Amino acid sequence: MQQGGPSSPSCPSNSDCFPLSRLNTAKCGSETSAEQEKHEPTDLSRMRSIMIFYMCYLLCLGLGLACVVCVCVWNSQWRGGFAWDSKARQFNWHPVLMVTGLVVVYGIGAVLYRIPLTWGQNKLPWKLLHAALMLIALVLSIVGLCAVFDFHNANNIPNLYSLHSWIGIAATALFAIQWVVGVAGFLLPCSPISLRKLLKPVHVWMGGSILWLSIAACISGINEKLFFVLKGTANGTQPYSKLPPEALLGNSLGVLIVAFGLVVLKILSNHNWQRPDSRPEDLAYTPLLQEENE
Amino acid sequence: MQQGGPSSPSCPSNSDCFPLSRLNTAKCGSETSAEQEKHEPTDLSRMRSIMIFYMCYLLCLGLGLACVVCVCVWNSQWRGGFAWDSKARQFNWHPVLMVTGLVVVYGIGAVLYRIPLTWGQNKLPWKLLHAALMLIALVLSIVGLCAVFDFHNANNIPNLYSLHSWIGIAATALFAIQWVVGVAGFLLPCSPISLRKLLKPVHVWMGGSILWLSIAACISGINEKLFFVLKGTANGTQPYSKLPPEALLGNSLGVLIVAFGLVVLKILSNHNWQRPDSRPEDLAYTPLLQEENE
Repeated sequence: MQQGGPSSPSCPSNSDCFPLSRLNTAKCGSETSAEQEKHEPTDLSRMRSIMIFYMCYLLCLGLGLACVVCVCVWNSQWRGGFAWDSKARQFNWHPVLMVTGLVVVYGIGAVLYRIPLTWGQNKLPWKLLHAALMLIALVLSIVGLCAVFDFHNANNIPNLYSLHSWIGIAATALFAIQWVVGVAGFLLPCSPISLRKLLKPVHVWMGGSILWLSIAACISGINEKLFFVLKGTANGTQPYSKLPPEALLGNSLGVLIVAFGLVVLKILSNHNWQRPDSRPEDLAYTPLLQEENE
Repeated sequence: MQQGGPSSPSCPSNSDCFPLSRLNTAKCGSETSAEQEKHEPTDLSRMRSIMIFYMCYLLCLGLGLACVVCVCVWNSQWRGGFAWDSKARQFNWHPVLMVTGLVVVYGIGAVLYRIPLTWGQNKLPWKLLHAALMLIALVLSIVGLCAVFDFHNANNIPNLYSLHSWIGIAATALFAIQWVVGVAGFLLPCSPISLRKLLKPVHVWMGGSILWLSIAACISGINEKLFFVLKGTANGTQPYSKLPPEALLGNSLGVLIVAFGLVVLKILSNHNWQRPDSRPEDLAYTPLLQEENE
């Protein structure tokens, strides 16, 4: 029985695996035409699974882009733009950098291994790209935190008292720990394979948890900001409760962030879209040498 | 080779399965003492996995209880208690019922199938209990929404303008749809097995998503409420930014809710803790008749 066939130990279910490298193997080897025909629906279901993945991936990129555009437009058009002058325009960097770093770049980095195009190749360059994207996300988040701490300190506003700030700082701290442990555990050549196997499920679960913590922080932050600025008392602005255009834009940003998170977590949770050498039932049968760059 | 042994098709990895009914099977059958000894670590790892599950489950129950106690104490001791009189004391039902229903009872209902004690038994009574717990959670959430809508309407406060309300109403609506589709798809005898297999991954993913949407709604709601009531202007109360005892209690409630959600989602995501007939690699080998009450 050839690799990836219906009874292959590394692929227990026909519909479970669809690496590109296996797509056309059903027509090779010693099988008869009748056996080949039996494989056609499997190939079709793999192709359909790949197509659905890329549709979800495009949706993820589109929603991510929409989040970044929306938070930039809100802060540049309605909140006065950007500066690093310890005034309101410095605060505006905070939502832009947190949404871009801690949600969008983070989410895109998280689903990198799920792209089927990367499966037939050496994992190391993709690991480096994953680590680099996550580093960009982490740096953006830290600069975003500096923007608000510096603004608060310059204006005698206490730091870290609201629940929003507690959840946000916890998400960023966990992200920093996750990045350091991830590099030490999965990229340093000296880390043992047994440690990598132990770390991997924790790394994957923590990765998803950090994303939804970040999204909870964003939702509470946008909600809080809209209540702060849309009081309906100054300059004839309408209150939040009247849903003026700025409120609609802010709420829409929240909805876009949630939709982006749902698509990312859907991609991460789909067993069929895991890199084949990362699936539990495949790991059980993978020769140890293939695990060396886990 | 006996059922559940290392090369059993329904259990591809030694550490992947640990139903109680299989725990002692390694010592039966035709194996030699040497083979029995090889199985000892497998039984040990299954026992350890069960122990870790029950520790997580107890943690989940403890955190859930702490959330309910915390939200009740906050609203009874700091917010004036409960009534159904269209005044502030009616609003107080809203956080209590949403946290209890949409987070705690929901989360406990979601992990029901993961309890190993239930695995050797007919699934139907556990399905009914899962549906009943979810119905209790849904009814509590709907009464919680009625409390706030009625309070708003009686006090001329607009409904559904804040991002908190948008996320909260979306979570409750998705939950109601999930419950109706779940009952129709998994409990009605007329629903075909093919439909159940198609629905199941969507049901599981949507279940997790509803929980983290609910938690995002709770975090933004607690944050918003603390800014509303802790203004530091009336009756000598301290502002939120000074972190008075009520602010600490509210923030702690948020942290407890997040911790509860993390434990529930950890239990749900752990492949080793899935009911054996629900795992993708087991489904591939399960005879059709065993799938009838899926």
